[in-house]
Amino acid sequence: MAIKEGLRPGGRSARVQESIHAAVRALLEEQDRASVTVPQIAVRAGVTPSTIYRRWGDLSVLLADVALARMRPDGEPANTGSLRGDVRAWAEQYLDEMSSEPGRNMMRDVQSSATPGYCVTIIGGQLQTILDRYPEQPKPSVDRLINMVVAPTVFRILFSVQALEVEELHRLIDIALSQ
Amino acid sequence: MAIKEGLRPGGRSARVQESIHAAVRALLEEQDRASVTVPQIAVRAGVTPSTIYRRWGDLSVLLADVALARMRPDGEPANTGSLRGDVRAWAEQYLDEMSSEPGRNMMRDVQSSATPGYCVTIIGGQLQTILDRYPEQPKPSVDRLINMVVAPTVFRILFSVQALEVEELHRLIDIALSQ
Repeated sequence: MAIKEGLRPGGRSARVQESIHAAVRALLEEQDRASVTVPQIAVRAGVTPSTIYRRWGDLSVLLADVALARMRPDGEPANTGSLRGDVRAWAEQYLDEMSSEPGRNMMRDVQSSATPGYCVTIIGGQLQTILDRYPEQPKPSVDRLINMVVAPTVFRILFSVQALEVEELHRLIDIALSQ
Repeated sequence: MAIKEGLRPGGRSARVQESIHAAVRALLEEQDRASVTVPQIAVRAGVTPSTIYRRWGDLSVLLADVALARMRPDGEPANTGSLRGDVRAWAEQYLDEMSSEPGRNMMRDVQSSATPGYCVTIIGGQLQTILDRYPEQPKPSVDRLINMVVAPTVFRILFSVQALEVEELHRLIDIALSQ
């Protein structure tokens, strides 16, 4: 969910984002997440609230973005040299991140946000980056990968006693890649 | 999520369940869902709160159970005469139900309940009923069906701009059944 696409590192836009993220992190250390507000964040970051609404839509998405940015400092999916390896590495990291407490909070934030679909857009972008590395290979669509790999990962975390087993995750990836 | 397993229709247990469900339905018509409490329901249904806690664990699960019982008066999955047909019929109905407003409320209730895994247990029971009708046929495990059919249905409702397309649902079922 890191909203890094299209931001030049060190550019004005990236600096604004970083100051807003830093403001959120600071406020979350001082007070309960339920009591943090957009105007508070704006004051702390030295921006107007509309800057925040324009970029994130609402507070839940911003909180989700900060949570993911914390977990994934490097946005580019790992390049292992094979499509199967890249998808496995990405999916294992995703499973780890989403199973964590910040990951669960993020999923709750995003669901109650005005733009829950944003999540799929970001995940889709990361998976597309992987697929684009292997132009010669037959491969599933990003939507199919999301349905067969991301969906069970998230579903099991939200609704199951235990998270998806890594063996089943690998098997689902193999099935998705063999279609 | 209808908790019907093991209840003799017309038995004492079924009558208690029905009176509790009826109490919830009545209270939901009179007041906001956020203000309904277990003691209120117990008084209305003429049972003790512990009867409710014992059977449902917490209020969220009871609300979820009532929501699903409302949507699915007949708990037995449709029997179309083929495994593929039964899974399709079940999955299409599930997609319809979960996309509705009561379905979304139910998913929220269950997530915030103390026993979110209960949901998978019930769904698994329904899918197992279908699989058991075709003992001779090679078929996926219930867990695989949940991962490939239920998970994307729920994930797309919670996190996508639009629900899963029926064509993709059918394709996922075909892939799951062909493994």
